[in-house]
Amino acid sequence: MTTATLADALGELKAALGAKVTENDTIREHHSKDESFHLASMPDAVVFAESIADIATTLKICNAHRIPVTPFGAGTSLEANSTPIHGGVSLDVSRMDAIVRVDSSDLDCTVQPGVRRKALNEHLAKFGLFFPVDPGADATIGGMAATGASGTTTVKYGAMKELVLGLTVVTANGEIVTTSRRARKTSAGYDLTHLFVGSEGTLGVIGEITLKVFGIPEVIAAATMQFPSVRHAVDAVIEVIQFGIGVARIELLDADAVSAVNCYSQTDLPEQALLLMEFHGSEESTRIDIAATREVLERHGGTGLRQTTDEAERRKLWQARHDTSLACRSLVPNARNFATDVCVPISRLSDCIEETQRDLAASGLYGPIIGHVGDGNFHVVLSVDPNDHETVAKMEEFHTRLVRRALAMEGTCTGEHGIGVGKSITSSMNSECPPYRRWRRSSRPSTHTGS
Amino acid sequence: MTTATLADALGELKAALGAKVTENDTIREHHSKDESFHLASMPDAVVFAESIADIATTLKICNAHRIPVTPFGAGTSLEANSTPIHGGVSLDVSRMDAIVRVDSSDLDCTVQPGVRRKALNEHLAKFGLFFPVDPGADATIGGMAATGASGTTTVKYGAMKELVLGLTVVTANGEIVTTSRRARKTSAGYDLTHLFVGSEGTLGVIGEITLKVFGIPEVIAAATMQFPSVRHAVDAVIEVIQFGIGVARIELLDADAVSAVNCYSQTDLPEQALLLMEFHGSEESTRIDIAATREVLERHGGTGLRQTTDEAERRKLWQARHDTSLACRSLVPNARNFATDVCVPISRLSDCIEETQRDLAASGLYGPIIGHVGDGNFHVVLSVDPNDHETVAKMEEFHTRLVRRALAMEGTCTGEHGIGVGKSITSSMNSECPPYRRWRRSSRPSTHTGS
Repeated sequence: MTTATLADALGELKAALGAKVTENDTIREHHSKDESFHLASMPDAVVFAESIADIATTLKICNAHRIPVTPFGAGTSLEANSTPIHGGVSLDVSRMDAIVRVDSSDLDCTVQPGVRRKALNEHLAKFGLFFPVDPGADATIGGMAATGASGTTTVKYGAMKELVLGLTVVTANGEIVTTSRRARKTSAGYDLTHLFVGSEGTLGVIGEITLKVFGIPEVIAAATMQFPSVRHAVDAVIEVIQFGIGVARIELLDADAVSAVNCYSQTDLPEQALLLMEFHGSEESTRIDIAATREVLERHGGTGLRQTTDEAERRKLWQARHDTSLACRSLVPNARNFATDVCVPISRLSDCIEETQRDLAASGLYGPIIGHVGDGNFHVVLSVDPNDHETVAKMEEFHTRLVRRALAMEGTCTGEHGIGVGKSITSSMNSECPPYRRWRRSSRPSTHTGS
Repeated sequence: MTTATLADALGELKAALGAKVTENDTIREHHSKDESFHLASMPDAVVFAESIADIATTLKICNAHRIPVTPFGAGTSLEANSTPIHGGVSLDVSRMDAIVRVDSSDLDCTVQPGVRRKALNEHLAKFGLFFPVDPGADATIGGMAATGASGTTTVKYGAMKELVLGLTVVTANGEIVTTSRRARKTSAGYDLTHLFVGSEGTLGVIGEITLKVFGIPEVIAAATMQFPSVRHAVDAVIEVIQFGIGVARIELLDADAVSAVNCYSQTDLPEQALLLMEFHGSEESTRIDIAATREVLERHGGTGLRQTTDEAERRKLWQARHDTSLACRSLVPNARNFATDVCVPISRLSDCIEETQRDLAASGLYGPIIGHVGDGNFHVVLSVDPNDHETVAKMEEFHTRLVRRALAMEGTCTGEHGIGVGKSITSSMNSECPPYRRWRRSSRPSTHTGS
């Protein structure tokens, strides 16, 4: 990309899209980063798409001039998934925030990519419906589909992979592809929907999404129970899953995470390994599910069952869980969070977490652990001052060991955050230069004056 | 493919694989067809692969000589999916029938492609586990994955698409690809597993499959209930699904299908639109689910609930359901079955079935209807003597209208049988020549003497 081709492309973009194209510094700055620890990188321009046609126009022009395009939603990703490290155009779809249709007979809805998950759920509630995937942040549905996101309810309802029924995608040359019709089942041809979910914008830009939705359960009951160790808790979860007991959420917090949460969210949770659970169903079925779960958990050393169906109390508990990262970060001055995201077969989860805890202790790193244990996925929340280079280096070495440990256990480096820029750099970790510095060094100087 | 290149390829195959390669007429004949109505076409040779290495060797040699290869499992497909219409090699994986591992903690297992679903379930039962997908026939797991099969339990447990966790695939040039690690969740890179599931051998040959399995429920209860019309039954099912009531199976038979079943399987089901259901869970949860279902069904005109947890009685009922095609066929002399397989959004299912019934009546065709109504998928069982050209022509015209009707309702031409050769020919139906004749006419004369 030369300055001349960039100028030509921007000229054509402005001719076609007018004020939707901007080179404003504040806006470019906003599109240079996400919520992660990773370094920022400015785009040369931002295009605010308002339709699939706008996306197609942008891609056609940029493709003709070989200008990089990076899609952008809410900027809530954790691996610099939306950071334009090669400059070029940040293609912002946040203005495409219409909920196109909701069908309560077919239990599906179609949305534009810029719809945020909380807004979607507010709208769906009018129909007695909800969309379960909750990656913590109030992300866009487009971003969640592109990342292959999941969350605390995946153990019952599935991840984006399971809940995206169809997509309209614009490929790099501006072609518009619909990946599926609206039937629940099909054996007709290649499954392009799944190919695009989790492809992080590398195969095309998502222009519309059809999602599976669910009826809001009659009763939602939350419960907590503490354990002598993480292993006790995880072994209990394995058995709950094996028995097919209907848990809608089953989240692990280790003692450090509970302490951080208590401090930040003014909760009084017992500071031990803790399982936070939720049960969805009827009065009768949730009662049965809780009793069955309790029996299994007690057999594994679980104690102190607390439960509630009170909505305010329940919301407070889950808000506290979702704020764990903030809670941990608040304990370290000037900290940013480095999110790890390994996922292993559930039979290896206790081993993986215990080895990781020993590794943390040996490294002298503070790293509370939270886990979507029903899925085998856990996060070590590493809060660090980016200017504390010694700790950053230690943390990166720890992360490499963590990923290798998960891979050796037939697991993956990322259960739900995606590869982004962060993990594509980390994956070549043998260099002596830590990735966050390497990135800065290798990243192309922007062709835009003033950046 | 010339006779010379074929001879060269077969020479190399025999040198590499010895007696696993055969040109025996009886064996070639066995590999020339499946269970469908569609015409047979002989392969020039059959290779019995005994390992992934054998698959790779076969593909490498055939690719170098441009010899067509068609994978073959149990030959139970319904759209000539495994019929070698271009001749060449039929690559039979039925000897690869080992169950590699079963893990009751992770609730998964790894199998070779030639394992049949009934054998798999016999083995899994020793661990208290089962694999739910039941396409009627005792198909191979490899074939079921390649076709994107599903069955009566898909409404609760999902189709192959949802239950294949990972694959080892051999691509056309003999490269071996593993599509996934064993973690339940991943956001690391493209979802190649789903790309291969349902690709019907066009992207590679499946060499190993990792499947999600489930604990055998403590209680399995079957139930039936009859309705004044198909619409009443389908509307009831929509509501059951909407309410999220835990049905494991919910199958529709129209009055004609029930009559055929009663006659063939000596059952005494009421000859009206009928729902056959199954509930999986504990004593208590199945009781609750049945009560909730009954309430909904009665509101939609359902009557005469019969239920049983007796295994023999339950098996008889489902065997009768699985034998519906045979039952219908037995009523027409010299008949073969033409299986239709449209799937529509469930909100359109009543319309689609009712219009189809009117179409059948107007066409003077006998076509009982059975449906996986929880998924929006139904089959019209068309039994016809292949030599009755007039009825065959009528039936093909009817099928074209049926597919167009489903497409107009945002549905698909195939919910679970795949495209195969059958539907790739049917899709160009404008010609005056009926497809089953067109196929014979256009198919390459075999280069093998004597075929």
